[in-house]
Amino acid sequence: MKLLITISYLGTEFCGYQVQGDKRTVQGDLNRACLELFGFDCDITGCSRTDRGVHANNFCASVTKKGTEALITDLKAENIPSALNAHLPTDISVKSAEFKDEGFHPRYDVKYKEYVYRIYNSRLRSPFEEGRSWQVPYNFSDRDIEKMGLAAEYFVGQHDFQAFMAQGSSVESTVRNIVYAKVERDGDTIVFRVAADGFLYNMVRILTGTLVEVARGKISPDEIPEIILSCDRTRAGATAPPHGLYLNKVVY
Amino acid sequence: MKLLITISYLGTEFCGYQVQGDKRTVQGDLNRACLELFGFDCDITGCSRTDRGVHANNFCASVTKKGTEALITDLKAENIPSALNAHLPTDISVKSAEFKDEGFHPRYDVKYKEYVYRIYNSRLRSPFEEGRSWQVPYNFSDRDIEKMGLAAEYFVGQHDFQAFMAQGSSVESTVRNIVYAKVERDGDTIVFRVAADGFLYNMVRILTGTLVEVARGKISPDEIPEIILSCDRTRAGATAPPHGLYLNKVVY
Repeated sequence: MKLLITISYLGTEFCGYQVQGDKRTVQGDLNRACLELFGFDCDITGCSRTDRGVHANNFCASVTKKGTEALITDLKAENIPSALNAHLPTDISVKSAEFKDEGFHPRYDVKYKEYVYRIYNSRLRSPFEEGRSWQVPYNFSDRDIEKMGLAAEYFVGQHDFQAFMAQGSSVESTVRNIVYAKVERDGDTIVFRVAADGFLYNMVRILTGTLVEVARGKISPDEIPEIILSCDRTRAGATAPPHGLYLNKVVY
Repeated sequence: MKLLITISYLGTEFCGYQVQGDKRTVQGDLNRACLELFGFDCDITGCSRTDRGVHANNFCASVTKKGTEALITDLKAENIPSALNAHLPTDISVKSAEFKDEGFHPRYDVKYKEYVYRIYNSRLRSPFEEGRSWQVPYNFSDRDIEKMGLAAEYFVGQHDFQAFMAQGSSVESTVRNIVYAKVERDGDTIVFRVAADGFLYNMVRILTGTLVEVARGKISPDEIPEIILSCDRTRAGATAPPHGLYLNKVVY
């Protein structure tokens, strides 16, 4: 059996998810914790990679003994989260664990992933939002937020999202299927929630930057289909900063 | 005129509110920012002191030129928050500013202050709650939370709160008037909200520790009046840690 763990992490102090030399990464910390708990080196395979500063409420990763497709342990799945947490720093937490068949793959078997992007819409910064949302210092009206929601609806469906991919990325196909895309206001916070079968590099951050241009009146919601069709990165909005982004849910 | 500012701060990296030698304090940072903005040394008088690790959503302080009862500036009150924020680190933010008569006193004129205490009620820790709430790893039922609310109701009114004061504190009178005290659940978070004309040293943290004993079934809500009457610190619960506590509102 493979072990599948669901973790959350505050991305602030990590150089992203994936191991990179000596830099502090989520995968690197998980590697060390698994070695300490299980007593042997493990392969940790994540559902995705997140960039420096990006957070996760629910990130999934499989754990197997290094070089094999299985993990053998006497621990019950239900006891693994707190056992692993004892070996992890406070900015990562294992939330749940379960055993899966060896055929299971944490990346290829994803049906869809949901990201959340948090915008702190206030002229003045908040100490509690620092590193956890993108402060956008305009006073958006309810009508502005409504326009963001209308624009987001145009994202839904299967489209070529090349206009919403970081320039210079290389990928076989830039077609992705967005399952839903919603904008909600909660006090001073605007939450953009988007789910897809996969995302291009920086895609959620560029979608968010584009929605902010819509709220500012620089792009009208009705222009979105045209921007998608253009496949032209310069037509979409700026790339929103990483620290407002959260991998929120992975559905298998 | 005196300047009254309302600020928020994340207490984590401060050795409390009040200036203490070379240690980093909120008052110390405000002193430096005011000197930089106004061009002269200022007296900063807070509505209260908060301990190391305690946060504030709305803390009030007056600013006057050092040794005087007034602040003379060409700046309009509405422009002062962002002007001061430019001289402050990201864990403090000035939210609003207004001018008050010289007779106004930010501590003596307080009608009541509201504190919020955040309990993170989960067996597993959350990276996002670290330093921002007290993790209490029992599974409290709705009935347990209800009992906390019943116990909190007994706190309301004018009482001698000596049983809820840190031992060794000295104060003229230990009588305080609690205006309201409520317990609400919001997902995994339990919020205790309490307002009074004044608080004894560690009082909110001891009230909170006592409510947790109620939820755990160690103290019944009906024992609260007796504990208050006893004036015996050992009858109340433990002192909850500082990092779940927020000065939330000051009413003049």
